[in-house]
Amino acid sequence: MKWSKSHLYTLKEAPNDAEIPSHKLMIRSGMIKKLDPGIFTYGTLALKAIRKFEAIVREELEKRGAQEVLMPALHPKELWQETNRWDEMGPGLMRLKNRNDKWFCLGATHEEAITDYVRNDLKSYKDLPRNLYQIQTKYRDEIRPRFGLMRGREFIMKDAYSFDMDRDGALKAYQAMYEGYQAIFDRLGAKYRIVEADAGNIGGSQTHEFQLLADAGEDALLVSDSSDFAANIEVCPAIDAVPHVSTAAPLPKEKFATPNQKTIKDLAAFTGQPENELVKTLFFTANSGLDPRDKELKPVAVLLRGSDELNPTKLKKVLGLPNDPLMLTDAEVKEVTGANPGSCGPVGLSIPVYMDNGVSGLKNYIVGANEDGFHLKNINHGTDFTPKATADLRMAREGDKCPKSNGKLQAFRGIEVGHVFYLGKKYSEKMKATFLDKNGKAQAFEMGCYGIGVSRTVQAIIEQMHDADGIIWPIAIAPFQVHICLLDLKDEKVSKKANETYEKLTQMGYDVLLDDRDERPGFKFKDADLLGMPFRINFGAKTLEHGEVEVVERKTKAMNKVPEGQIISYIVEKIPLKK
Amino acid sequence: MKWSKSHLYTLKEAPNDAEIPSHKLMIRSGMIKKLDPGIFTYGTLALKAIRKFEAIVREELEKRGAQEVLMPALHPKELWQETNRWDEMGPGLMRLKNRNDKWFCLGATHEEAITDYVRNDLKSYKDLPRNLYQIQTKYRDEIRPRFGLMRGREFIMKDAYSFDMDRDGALKAYQAMYEGYQAIFDRLGAKYRIVEADAGNIGGSQTHEFQLLADAGEDALLVSDSSDFAANIEVCPAIDAVPHVSTAAPLPKEKFATPNQKTIKDLAAFTGQPENELVKTLFFTANSGLDPRDKELKPVAVLLRGSDELNPTKLKKVLGLPNDPLMLTDAEVKEVTGANPGSCGPVGLSIPVYMDNGVSGLKNYIVGANEDGFHLKNINHGTDFTPKATADLRMAREGDKCPKSNGKLQAFRGIEVGHVFYLGKKYSEKMKATFLDKNGKAQAFEMGCYGIGVSRTVQAIIEQMHDADGIIWPIAIAPFQVHICLLDLKDEKVSKKANETYEKLTQMGYDVLLDDRDERPGFKFKDADLLGMPFRINFGAKTLEHGEVEVVERKTKAMNKVPEGQIISYIVEKIPLKK
Repeated sequence: MKWSKSHLYTLKEAPNDAEIPSHKLMIRSGMIKKLDPGIFTYGTLALKAIRKFEAIVREELEKRGAQEVLMPALHPKELWQETNRWDEMGPGLMRLKNRNDKWFCLGATHEEAITDYVRNDLKSYKDLPRNLYQIQTKYRDEIRPRFGLMRGREFIMKDAYSFDMDRDGALKAYQAMYEGYQAIFDRLGAKYRIVEADAGNIGGSQTHEFQLLADAGEDALLVSDSSDFAANIEVCPAIDAVPHVSTAAPLPKEKFATPNQKTIKDLAAFTGQPENELVKTLFFTANSGLDPRDKELKPVAVLLRGSDELNPTKLKKVLGLPNDPLMLTDAEVKEVTGANPGSCGPVGLSIPVYMDNGVSGLKNYIVGANEDGFHLKNINHGTDFTPKATADLRMAREGDKCPKSNGKLQAFRGIEVGHVFYLGKKYSEKMKATFLDKNGKAQAFEMGCYGIGVSRTVQAIIEQMHDADGIIWPIAIAPFQVHICLLDLKDEKVSKKANETYEKLTQMGYDVLLDDRDERPGFKFKDADLLGMPFRINFGAKTLEHGEVEVVERKTKAMNKVPEGQIISYIVEKIPLKK
Repeated sequence: MKWSKSHLYTLKEAPNDAEIPSHKLMIRSGMIKKLDPGIFTYGTLALKAIRKFEAIVREELEKRGAQEVLMPALHPKELWQETNRWDEMGPGLMRLKNRNDKWFCLGATHEEAITDYVRNDLKSYKDLPRNLYQIQTKYRDEIRPRFGLMRGREFIMKDAYSFDMDRDGALKAYQAMYEGYQAIFDRLGAKYRIVEADAGNIGGSQTHEFQLLADAGEDALLVSDSSDFAANIEVCPAIDAVPHVSTAAPLPKEKFATPNQKTIKDLAAFTGQPENELVKTLFFTANSGLDPRDKELKPVAVLLRGSDELNPTKLKKVLGLPNDPLMLTDAEVKEVTGANPGSCGPVGLSIPVYMDNGVSGLKNYIVGANEDGFHLKNINHGTDFTPKATADLRMAREGDKCPKSNGKLQAFRGIEVGHVFYLGKKYSEKMKATFLDKNGKAQAFEMGCYGIGVSRTVQAIIEQMHDADGIIWPIAIAPFQVHICLLDLKDEKVSKKANETYEKLTQMGYDVLLDDRDERPGFKFKDADLLGMPFRINFGAKTLEHGEVEVVERKTKAMNKVPEGQIISYIVEKIPLKK
């Protein structure tokens, strides 16, 4: 591509709403342009990187027997009602009514659509196993779209779905996709971790996330320093490295005044007790919110040590809800307890109380008195109140004990780029998608589903691979592998040589960008660093006088002078041509 | 692709809602499956044909300087309000409100989106010309989706947009795209016509449609038998081959009873006058309907010869409306005229009367009396009523005079697969999309837009290229070029040879389907004819004993015996490998 004839405009500054480096770099390099929050046009460079990544995804999936189809984005309501997800998906599912007052949604995921697609085709166990995938545009109504392609309303996904006759088959399909994903992210040269994760609205009993490591990643990961354990913090068991068990004898309960002591920090300072020996009480509703007519408040209390944070995913599971439970408002808390949030506790409540494991080792602790400005001391569970259940409800953290070894957990930040789910019969049973087994008996399919955020991965790669000057593309998905800077535009010989090299490499099958704009060398170098193609070749009058060109490797910034006649073979050596 | 491991299921019968051959064949061959009316999943075969067609489109467009981007499908309302098309597009535009009560539409076309995309980049005439295109999924809320991919609610389009500094440049861009489209459809080997057309909601003063000829085509085309004139009937001037001009002297108007004579046919029989000498009166509202608060009925009457049909596109233009005008209801007609539709006429009306050219040559004609059961005879325009305007308002028909020569018009049916529009400044002025010209003065871009229905073309090709047994793919977009029927599955030698040929051709870069199912030969041949790949190779024990295989050309059904050792070179000769 010749820059002078291309729609490629770089920016010195990113707009204010670009918060993380990759978002800024994608905007500045003209890769994406916002049409509306979370909705972008992909420029030619972004599209080239996306298409290259898609090709890698296709290759690795088809190697493993997956077959490509393309499903619609527009789904009728009836389809999603078959699994009850029309309700369960909540407001994140974009919905519309057409001119005939018929309801549709824009697919955020395609379990229903694919199950409908195959359910009349896959009649017999002889038709199994089957794995179908698509690369397609998806929609999610993010409350607050941000971080560019990371959390958008419209994005490109690869989603694959496997159908098997039994659990063993499904787990084999899962393993094949797991390995396929490793191959895919390995080919990008990306640093990533595979972690246990929450299945969210998709469901299923086994699931792993593929997380590209990056400081700006939205996900917190905890990885063992001495086993293969790795988990998204959402599902990471929380185990104190040093168990916190008091052996004190129970003391009699006592109310005391705590005027204006509203936070745990206040209370720790006021009482002289460490935060991890205070107990805080949080309030949620166990109403799933799925039935808009059901307005009943189903309040529950949750007890945690003052130093811990609640893990809403764990609470969701304990309560058996489809989505994270909502916190009560201050007014609702007051209605339930008689006090404002800072002064509440479990003693005397008539609602279910869930206690975190961390609290169970404490004795004679302090809780709110359910009376504004007062707390109770010397409280003991079993004596002063009875929890409905004790469970792992807190967020794990760095330094906690590894659940699989005696090691400790280390913290990383990650960007979720892939997710594999073993679904079992969750969808097939609800949708009556069955096949005849060897005995002629109808059985529901064992399913799995497997997603890769295609547009998101391209940005995640930039988030992981950049420096202060710009992007550092891995060769595998670089929009162009070679960036030629033609420095002395008006020098006929230089221009001819640069163009010849451009033509030759292009004909050989390389993707080459030729910067033939009428700009100063420094300006072009800055842009080349920003765009970040793996190799830059400078064609300038000075070096060409000595029969040489400069080759700069973007990653290392190492500069080599190469005899002009050897530039093609130099590139071929650095970037082997596929075939 | 090996059939035994593929998701490929053929059907003997098409469902009842498949009306035309191509729709039936696409369903029967498993190419598409309906999720909802007008919404389909593309199976692997369809996707392969689509991808091949897309590659041809890309190649021909990029040869002509177009550059690929990818715009979103989700557009904010504000964008479409800039050009007033949020209102003008009517209910065909699918609209949705998100969780924040913000309105979006699903792009049916992208003039606004692309103009927004470039308007801050293209600052100077030096940035021009520019031509950007995308291949993307589009949405249109068809009232009655039918004919498979022909008239769907979700479909794949290629849309390109050109930006030039002046009209000459824009017309050059138009010409380049016009020629690009010719190259594209020529590469498919398709029979097509390029016709003048209506610009519809897109707008612009020059426009051509590319119409694939097919009996089941939705569009009526009229093509001159002796000039290069060709037009969609929507815009075809209607000129009587033999001018119909009466020289009779005007007679006095007379009312007469016509009990129960409601149609032109009735009236012709009742009066003994030929239909083309009777005059019928139709009623429309000139209210654009764009402003839902504006309920004013703006009735107009239209006069046509009894034998002619109104062309609503022509009336739309005469009335200056953005969409086809709506007919009045019977009640509204009665309110305006005092009579029911069958007894209405222009005499005494206080609303504007538009008269078709065909009526202007008539004298002493019969019209409704605006009194139920009565007509007037000996009516003459100018005397008994005064038309507001006389214009070409009727549908042209086969046998009419060619507007560009003394020849006549011939009728064809076509499927619109491409459309090129010269837009001028319609969008750029409204959206304040300007560049600085050579004199440093801000000028609005001269634009063009260019669409190809990608998914529709694939079906249109099938509509044009099929026989009683199935599809007849042109090599250019055949999902597979070669279809190998392995006939004696259990014969090891046959199976080995068939698989070797499959592997060899696949490695060479051919797309090959190997039918390795455990089915009878006749069953496989039927399926092969249905799927319609250009060449079928039969590997059977009998012919292989003589060292031969059978090759059947799908198009001609001609069968050749080819020595098994020469089958590769035979195929290479028939289907030259690209590159």
